[in-house]
Amino acid sequence: METAMQAINTAEEYINSLRNRKLKVYLLGELVEDIVEHPMIRPSINAVAETFALAAEEPELASAISPFTGKRINRFLHIAQSSADLVLQNKMQRRLGQLTGTCFQRCVGMDAFNSLYSTTYEIDKAHNTFYHARFKNFIAYTQNHNFVIGGAMTDVKGDRSLAPHQQADPDLFVHVSRRTPEGVYITGAKAHQTGCLNSHWLLVMPTMRLTENDKAYAIVGAIPVDADGITYIYGRQSCDTRSMEGGDIDAGNAQFGGQEAMIIFEEVFIPNELIFMDGEYAFASMLVERFTCYHRRSYVCKSGVGDVLIGAAATIAEYNGADKANHIKDKLVEMTHLNETIYATGIAASYQAKPTLSGAYLADDMLANVCKHHVTRIPYEIGRLAQDLAGGLVVTLPSEQDFRSKDVGHLLEKYLKGKAEVSTEHRIRILRLIENMTLGRNAVGYLTESMHGAGSPQAQRIQIARQMQLDFKQQLAKELAGIEKRQKNKLVKEINDYLGRVFDTNI
Amino acid sequence: METAMQAINTAEEYINSLRNRKLKVYLLGELVEDIVEHPMIRPSINAVAETFALAAEEPELASAISPFTGKRINRFLHIAQSSADLVLQNKMQRRLGQLTGTCFQRCVGMDAFNSLYSTTYEIDKAHNTFYHARFKNFIAYTQNHNFVIGGAMTDVKGDRSLAPHQQADPDLFVHVSRRTPEGVYITGAKAHQTGCLNSHWLLVMPTMRLTENDKAYAIVGAIPVDADGITYIYGRQSCDTRSMEGGDIDAGNAQFGGQEAMIIFEEVFIPNELIFMDGEYAFASMLVERFTCYHRRSYVCKSGVGDVLIGAAATIAEYNGADKANHIKDKLVEMTHLNETIYATGIAASYQAKPTLSGAYLADDMLANVCKHHVTRIPYEIGRLAQDLAGGLVVTLPSEQDFRSKDVGHLLEKYLKGKAEVSTEHRIRILRLIENMTLGRNAVGYLTESMHGAGSPQAQRIQIARQMQLDFKQQLAKELAGIEKRQKNKLVKEINDYLGRVFDTNI
Amino acid sequence: METAMQAINTAEEYINSLRNRKLKVYLLGELVEDIVEHPMIRPSINAVAETFALAAEEPELASAISPFTGKRINRFLHIAQSSADLVLQNKMQRRLGQLTGTCFQRCVGMDAFNSLYSTTYEIDKAHNTFYHARFKNFIAYTQNHNFVIGGAMTDVKGDRSLAPHQQADPDLFVHVSRRTPEGVYITGAKAHQTGCLNSHWLLVMPTMRLTENDKAYAIVGAIPVDADGITYIYGRQSCDTRSMEGGDIDAGNAQFGGQEAMIIFEEVFIPNELIFMDGEYAFASMLVERFTCYHRRSYVCKSGVGDVLIGAAATIAEYNGADKANHIKDKLVEMTHLNETIYATGIAASYQAKPTLSGAYLADDMLANVCKHHVTRIPYEIGRLAQDLAGGLVVTLPSEQDFRSKDVGHLLEKYLKGKAEVSTEHRIRILRLIENMTLGRNAVGYLTESMHGAGSPQAQRIQIARQMQLDFKQQLAKELAGIEKRQKNKLVKEINDYLGRVFDTNI
Amino acid sequence: METAMQAINTAEEYINSLRNRKLKVYLLGELVEDIVEHPMIRPSINAVAETFALAAEEPELASAISPFTGKRINRFLHIAQSSADLVLQNKMQRRLGQLTGTCFQRCVGMDAFNSLYSTTYEIDKAHNTFYHARFKNFIAYTQNHNFVIGGAMTDVKGDRSLAPHQQADPDLFVHVSRRTPEGVYITGAKAHQTGCLNSHWLLVMPTMRLTENDKAYAIVGAIPVDADGITYIYGRQSCDTRSMEGGDIDAGNAQFGGQEAMIIFEEVFIPNELIFMDGEYAFASMLVERFTCYHRRSYVCKSGVGDVLIGAAATIAEYNGADKANHIKDKLVEMTHLNETIYATGIAASYQAKPTLSGAYLADDMLANVCKHHVTRIPYEIGRLAQDLAGGLVVTLPSEQDFRSKDVGHLLEKYLKGKAEVSTEHRIRILRLIENMTLGRNAVGYLTESMHGAGSPQAQRIQIARQMQLDFKQQLAKELAGIEKRQKNKLVKEINDYLGRVFDTNI
Repeated sequence: METAMQAINTAEEYINSLRNRKLKVYLLGELVEDIVEHPMIRPSINAVAETFALAAEEPELASAISPFTGKRINRFLHIAQSSADLVLQNKMQRRLGQLTGTCFQRCVGMDAFNSLYSTTYEIDKAHNTFYHARFKNFIAYTQNHNFVIGGAMTDVKGDRSLAPHQQADPDLFVHVSRRTPEGVYITGAKAHQTGCLNSHWLLVMPTMRLTENDKAYAIVGAIPVDADGITYIYGRQSCDTRSMEGGDIDAGNAQFGGQEAMIIFEEVFIPNELIFMDGEYAFASMLVERFTCYHRRSYVCKSGVGDVLIGAAATIAEYNGADKANHIKDKLVEMTHLNETIYATGIAASYQAKPTLSGAYLADDMLANVCKHHVTRIPYEIGRLAQDLAGGLVVTLPSEQDFRSKDVGHLLEKYLKGKAEVSTEHRIRILRLIENMTLGRNAVGYLTESMHGAGSPQAQRIQIARQMQLDFKQQLAKELAGIEKRQKNKLVKEINDYLGRVFDTNI
Repeated sequence: METAMQAINTAEEYINSLRNRKLKVYLLGELVEDIVEHPMIRPSINAVAETFALAAEEPELASAISPFTGKRINRFLHIAQSSADLVLQNKMQRRLGQLTGTCFQRCVGMDAFNSLYSTTYEIDKAHNTFYHARFKNFIAYTQNHNFVIGGAMTDVKGDRSLAPHQQADPDLFVHVSRRTPEGVYITGAKAHQTGCLNSHWLLVMPTMRLTENDKAYAIVGAIPVDADGITYIYGRQSCDTRSMEGGDIDAGNAQFGGQEAMIIFEEVFIPNELIFMDGEYAFASMLVERFTCYHRRSYVCKSGVGDVLIGAAATIAEYNGADKANHIKDKLVEMTHLNETIYATGIAASYQAKPTLSGAYLADDMLANVCKHHVTRIPYEIGRLAQDLAGGLVVTLPSEQDFRSKDVGHLLEKYLKGKAEVSTEHRIRILRLIENMTLGRNAVGYLTESMHGAGSPQAQRIQIARQMQLDFKQQLAKELAGIEKRQKNKLVKEINDYLGRVFDTNI
Repeated sequence: METAMQAINTAEEYINSLRNRKLKVYLLGELVEDIVEHPMIRPSINAVAETFALAAEEPELASAISPFTGKRINRFLHIAQSSADLVLQNKMQRRLGQLTGTCFQRCVGMDAFNSLYSTTYEIDKAHNTFYHARFKNFIAYTQNHNFVIGGAMTDVKGDRSLAPHQQADPDLFVHVSRRTPEGVYITGAKAHQTGCLNSHWLLVMPTMRLTENDKAYAIVGAIPVDADGITYIYGRQSCDTRSMEGGDIDAGNAQFGGQEAMIIFEEVFIPNELIFMDGEYAFASMLVERFTCYHRRSYVCKSGVGDVLIGAAATIAEYNGADKANHIKDKLVEMTHLNETIYATGIAASYQAKPTLSGAYLADDMLANVCKHHVTRIPYEIGRLAQDLAGGLVVTLPSEQDFRSKDVGHLLEKYLKGKAEVSTEHRIRILRLIENMTLGRNAVGYLTESMHGAGSPQAQRIQIARQMQLDFKQQLAKELAGIEKRQKNKLVKEINDYLGRVFDTNI
Repeated sequence: METAMQAINTAEEYINSLRNRKLKVYLLGELVEDIVEHPMIRPSINAVAETFALAAEEPELASAISPFTGKRINRFLHIAQSSADLVLQNKMQRRLGQLTGTCFQRCVGMDAFNSLYSTTYEIDKAHNTFYHARFKNFIAYTQNHNFVIGGAMTDVKGDRSLAPHQQADPDLFVHVSRRTPEGVYITGAKAHQTGCLNSHWLLVMPTMRLTENDKAYAIVGAIPVDADGITYIYGRQSCDTRSMEGGDIDAGNAQFGGQEAMIIFEEVFIPNELIFMDGEYAFASMLVERFTCYHRRSYVCKSGVGDVLIGAAATIAEYNGADKANHIKDKLVEMTHLNETIYATGIAASYQAKPTLSGAYLADDMLANVCKHHVTRIPYEIGRLAQDLAGGLVVTLPSEQDFRSKDVGHLLEKYLKGKAEVSTEHRIRILRLIENMTLGRNAVGYLTESMHGAGSPQAQRIQIARQMQLDFKQQLAKELAGIEKRQKNKLVKEINDYLGRVFDTNI
């Protein structure tokens, strides 16, 4: 963990920090030489770089004072000291969604930091271990260097009806495959890893509730992204190769994109001081549940991406000369209503946070799930309405090369002219952005990852079901129906669980 | 305004305070002798009485310390000193929705108090008038007595395409019809007045934006509910006469109900010291907009009513022996998801409040509208799902008299038996509660008033449209599409209006 | 079955045919003396009377030539000889929905006739019984007299987790409780019986799949409505007593209403020649499935009722002076789009009918379920939109007595005036009709019975699941994905079940 | 029009018929040498070829007897002689959607044929012209050769607020730019032309209602696809270049795809005998309205494509081991319910067809619009649910090259293994098909073209509005509300327009 590296202060320094690492990354069947200059990978690096730029330009929004170092640090590395800290995460997330129009890939690490912070505290209390102090050291170290952390949680899972230790192949969940006095070696693979190549460290965590037989799977530790034994295989996205075609129009959003890869660990070493759970299987579910609680509310970022898509839809309507039509205005209102619903339910979850035993604040789980559940529906409807406003041209536009062609470019210029004062190229560019966000590369993040990231819809429904307190509500109904005698009002203080937080007056 | 009356401290004192007043109330074509003992009116009085009971039992939730009197007062009379005060209003509203299963009718007065507080402050600044001080006196007076305030805003409006002064009949909007040195006389009518008979004072306010020609309509003042010249005509509700049939089952919710009446003013006097606007027509729209901003978020109460209906639906599923079915559980989850969306968007509007010039806090208008707009849709869907779970019996049940009948009561007992351990009467009672909330008396409040109270859906869409900042969003899209050069990030501080509040880091 | 009674030719003759019968009907705890003149029951009789009036006025729509008697008969008594006959049922149903604005109660009998016709044919084939000939005799007899038939299917069911023979009380399903050489005696109760009092005959049928132990429950027979041993207990509807208040406004639809009662059979006799199933338990499910197939598509009637509600919403918008607003027009379009979806899916099910072995045509079961499933959702949304257009007055209107009152009638006349050319009474009447259809008496039929009649939503989902032919669709996908070799196109003729009907070219 | 060419009988002959034509086609900035062998174009040719294969294999479904030639012809060239003919079109369309999983591009020509058939008849009647006979000759000619016809309707339109003759550039709508005794020359461009390159003839038609000043734009004529003066510019589709990458997995559906191009006409000649409208501007709207009426109902094809997507979703659920979960089954039911709604509303429009003056049958316009309006919503929801069932892997899968790679192929094989009995490649293939249909190449056809083809959603709402007969419905409501006296039932025969068709008993 010793390193002479300086703290990363700017977007440019961040990008440079990714150069010259010995990563083994496969993309389209080839080993990638330089991820920084690869045209398909670079947009995802640019998106992370925005998190550095914003911290510099808007420190109150995107940085915070570390309670561990006393220094101003990037908010993505901050442990939430209050519900306000969680709300500010959401505001930063919305802003970055606006600035990139895509996934900026740094929330998994932030949410992993916060959930592991309180979980290590509680493991130590139960087991007299020392994970929490170790983890605080690691946090301070990453804060000092301003590193990017990738959280690696989702195992490939194999046969979903079997527990980790029951799988035919033990590697289908990441686990300790060897031990030495200095540390452990892990083997396995993590799927759908957002923003891993462009991180500095990976925080490896179990993906689900574990039982005693799964002890070897109850491992949490930090690993440098370029550690020996790791292979990355890059995930394809819709229209990904457009960024390799040379132009800057057909990609739709040439500058920014998301990134998902599969990470394969083959006997990768974690030294003792970077191990934060090792065998305490009973705490796997706490870690996972706290992580998803934070992360489901982190999808407020999509309201920022939604702002871009609403703006794009309003622009194409104007370019088409249709922006004064009532039905167009009404659709923009509906898009806004839906988009703000994501934002409002997310910040409500953050505002209604409570401190854990460790002092770090944890968001309200019910409302975090309500937020994420909307995210599995609303972006699809906003996307549908954006395609409505775009008109059919969004999927029948000729290529950028045709627009640049000396043979037919003038014909396209002539025939794709809309309103006199709008250049044909501008009209095409905004259509390509809408294509990018509803069918193309960033549709992956705006739609499908909104569906499945931080848990698929059914996972939220299960979590909502756990907290819906039907007994309490049935009691209310029975009293009003005259089935049970009205007791003196049950003291609000006695109401527990979710409704206890609702009626907590300490806000 | 002098009165020897003592402060009202309990629900019972409140009910007694309504006796022996000389009100002119018509109901079903008859002059009502005693509103307190009238079986159709009493449930609405009981609902308001709960606001007194809750303040006694849960003072942190339902009362506050007045900045004017230094005393603990009912929260419905409190001027919000912080966003927390607004959030606590929402929590109190949800709790009262749970306890009554209906509209408890006291929010209009609360929201009128708060909006008038800041508006009088700004009128005085513009016109060197003294309304604000007068109004503070009135507030302190009502706080000392713990009075119930009815806000009277919605005029009958006549031909909606004409302004007040253009109407064939000038009385179609309430206006000053005579002046004396001591005060003014007003004439006109207010429709759909929630909780007026069971209030102590009416706060009369204009209903819409006014122009110079409408000066006589720019009148705000306080009037005792039993003032000379007022006639109340009680509005019918679905199934209203069931409360007059003698039993306590078929009403569904025998104890609590809402109340709406038309108030007709015929030359009703307001003394100068109770006039809080008189001719400053330009401030009518500020008053109305601030009122609707508070009030649209006050519909969080419906999440409390929704809790009851979810509880009732879960109970009948259990009584029917169907509570273990997957589709039943899934529908309860959906109801909960929707219900919490109302709550979350409402409290988000309150959390994101900002101080007005007067110091009183005003909720976020965009999110308040998003909350209310959901309220025009979600209760209908929750109601539909509740009817789904109830089964057809909810609309084909024989009457309470039949259950009590010696001829056929035993047949019903025999044949309407569900699970052995559930009494037939309990099954019937919970079905009648569901009927009450989806078709009957409290469906009026849970459904139709959710649609139209504080403005019909289109009013929210107009307000959302005003604040959706398309220019800003188009700029975001154009930068990402490469249409406009990316400027150095626009400072968050420069973002104005709604998104300025979103990105405000002072929380 | 011999009777000197003449055929019923007119609505008036039908009404007279219901007089002077010795029915035992309980309503609001009292034995009803004369159902025809009872103000709460009469509207349901009027609705059935319209089926006679329409047959007289529009014979091609509402009558048919009987293949059994060669005479023109009411279409409700006709056995479908072609898919066109089923489509014409739908058209007649929509028209009657338009004319009554409610449930006209005669479809259950029609659908029972048709499903029993083909089921008795198939029982006879399997068991060498003679039910089919008997049943044809009964059909001809009812056609000759033009009787109204009530189908009695839904048992009260008791504990839903137990089969009929397992219930603690054997009477919780109707069953044979005694046998004589002349016939059988049945005991039990049927719930939610639409249009029974105003019928002439009841056709008693089992309500679900039966097994060998339930043999005594496998009984089908015809019983005169006024047979010894029957007790009717009338179901309450929302706002039902308004029809007993004297006026004709507050009821909303003073002339027409639905009717549901519980029928209790205590040792009621069925002579042998009126028994159409007796112990052939294996055919209970065929009977029930065919009945629901016809009946789920019979809900096309709701598109006729929807026409009325759309008309009422358009009228109140006009009376309010709001009919030119874009959002109003748009909501009327949405209501129409949804309403026509019910109609179109229903007639598609009828058009795609196929003959049974008996020759009678049976509708397409998949599309019948799709139609009904829409009916469990669409009327609620149309109702919500109608309330949106109505404005809040729909639930705050004073009573008819107040409008008639000499004390306050003139005030209401003055203050509820909308557009100059529209009378206040007309405005009130149309609002009361909307209340009637969305909260009041006919909301029972338009909403809740749309939900539960002919099976609750989950019943349709189960039926859709049974027919969705996933194997076939998976094969399509696998071929296109390159998982399985493309075979020569599977001959359309080989496709079975639902898609077999889709691709049948004999139309 | 003379040609020695033989009739095309098989899919292979069709493909060969497209070779060696002198087309000027631009794609990705290059002139295409051979469209048949171009890997990005070929899938669209294969899709059309299926229309030939199906006619051979299922003649009753996909062919008909021509009333003009007496010979069996492809149904796509048939003029509908009955409503059954229109229903059979729908069935054929669904089947081809199942077989190709995409747009098979031949419906525009079919619908253009039918609409022009009756329109030329009515032009001749009004103007004593001879277009109808000419057009019948052309139909017979194409039937004899079994040609593919592309209908060219949608002009590029320029400034949408201006009529054709008002545009700054007259070429923004196709128009007659020169005349000779032998014929006319046309200039302009058609956008979004489905299936043009792979057709033999183009039928050029105006795109909207025209006025006297637009006479030069009122031109209809037939042009060989390879006529002098035509330039085609190929439209890009999401993920289009995957078909050029060499493998057959990542394309998702390697065999079939859609096609849209822009067609630019520069002085293209039409001889007199192939002109079917020339200046009769008043008939442009009839032609457009009849075309959209047929074409909006032609979107029944999407129910066939939906069958594939439902099958793919069911398959991936099975491969993931999740097919037994209740929520999975329930989502498949919902997808089916929605998919059958498209089918049912479409065939209802066809069944309810009526003959035009020419004898050709025209579908019901209201229901055709209801069908298409569902198509602008339902595929998006089915697509969303398919992505839900697919899991996140659908957008994070590595490339086909990685699977084939000797370096990492074995790792993917190991770690992407799901259930033991399912090969990893099969799992990947089905995921790529889902990607193809929800984000990739065929999402263009299944989603965006479902939105905009045959008119965007607002166009359907306008058409529904025109036919919704509010006056009639208001009359129904007023009679039931007691506002107007109930007249003797208006005779069904007197009901006109849409409801006249509904109540027409000649079926």
